Amino acid sequence: MADKLTIHTYDWVPEGPRGFVRDLRLRWAAEEAGLPYEVRTIAFEDRQTNHLDRQPFGQAPFLTDGDVELFESGACLLHLAERSEALMPSDPVGRAQTLQWIMAALNSLEMVSVPWWFLRISGDRDNGLTGWLGSRLDHVEAVLAEREWLAAGRFTAADLIMADVLRVPAVREHGDRPATEAYIRRIIARPAFRKAHADQLAHFAAADAQRAG
Amino acid sequence: MADKLTIHTYDWVPEGPRGFVRDLRLRWAAEEAGLPYEVRTIAFEDRQTNHLDRQPFGQAPFLTDGDVELFESGACLLHLAERSEALMPSDPVGRAQTLQWIMAALNSLEMVSVPWWFLRISGDRDNGLTGWLGSRLDHVEAVLAEREWLAAGRFTAADLIMADVLRVPAVREHGDRPATEAYIRRIIARPAFRKAHADQLAHFAAADAQRAG
Repeated sequence: MADKLTIHTYDWVPEGPRGFVRDLRLRWAAEEAGLPYEVRTIAFEDRQTNHLDRQPFGQAPFLTDGDVELFESGACLLHLAERSEALMPSDPVGRAQTLQWIMAALNSLEMVSVPWWFLRISGDRDNGLTGWLGSRLDHVEAVLAEREWLAAGRFTAADLIMADVLRVPAVREHGDRPATEAYIRRIIARPAFRKAHADQLAHFAAADAQRAG
Repeated sequence: MADKLTIHTYDWVPEGPRGFVRDLRLRWAAEEAGLPYEVRTIAFEDRQTNHLDRQPFGQAPFLTDGDVELFESGACLLHLAERSEALMPSDPVGRAQTLQWIMAALNSLEMVSVPWWFLRISGDRDNGLTGWLGSRLDHVEAVLAEREWLAAGRFTAADLIMADVLRVPAVREHGDRPATEAYIRRIIARPAFRKAHADQLAHFAAADAQRAG
């Protein structure tokens, strides 16, 4: 497509979520794939209502790719993965492996880790999801103890999303799982992650400077 | 592919989850697409350990399609959707809409509804996820008040998975949302759902009979 990819995220966020806002997943994927992109913003202040026509849950990010516009970071990641062999093999078996592990990261891991974290920051530190999260992390540890990459014997979008789900500090500190920890370190050492992460921090830092000025 | 699709599920489950075991999503998708399939089983008794080589979280279902084998009901659904226009349009815009709403059902709705339900059946009825679930359901209600289908102006795999997430009785009773309720009723009235649902109930009832005999 002629048009550049556009990643839409917030114009500013507080310190806490910086480095973890989900536009990072899309920046990272675009960097891995070598796809040029630009970043546009929506106002954080009125986020619950100011972009419901483009993201019906009032969240970020969403992605524009020519005529295609889509929300949900997992859907955007799959869309980008379909554009680049660097993110997903095109052979049916490698593709299916990538797809299943992307979904496992989102629907078996993040489905427990995010609500667990939500209860925790709401003040319920030892909440009713703690054991379930531990069990899910144990299953992932058993897989990562046996292999370097989740799918197709090489880095794919599945590692991108799994590492992004696992690297949340509270999740990382939930028990001692050496294979998982080594995996997270290995994946987030990739230049594409480091660039995406630095770019997100710079984006929000620039917004601070603009507010102060 | 020459080989028939094979959906792998449990040989038996207790009464409670019957009609909701996730193989239903795959049966339903295959029925909508007119894809022939067979059902094979794994033992429910030792499910935590007896099929970790095929489903590393010890869950069901998983799917075989020729050389392709994959787990995660969401991944299996996307795989089937790529095989049939009945489940997902092939044009880029309709495809992206379907993809984003499949992910919304799994990662924005189910990510809250399943942990909420888990805490609830664990005895924490008014748990810390109640408000968040209500908010997510309100966003879906606002969308469904404006349209009949989630994506592409017609039934897609996005409606299949969203209706399956929403039809859980406790979720359905979480507040009064008439557009959502009408949507659930409309989607689960489809012949393909009714056949898949009846077939799952019959599958587990046959297992009861075998146990008793």
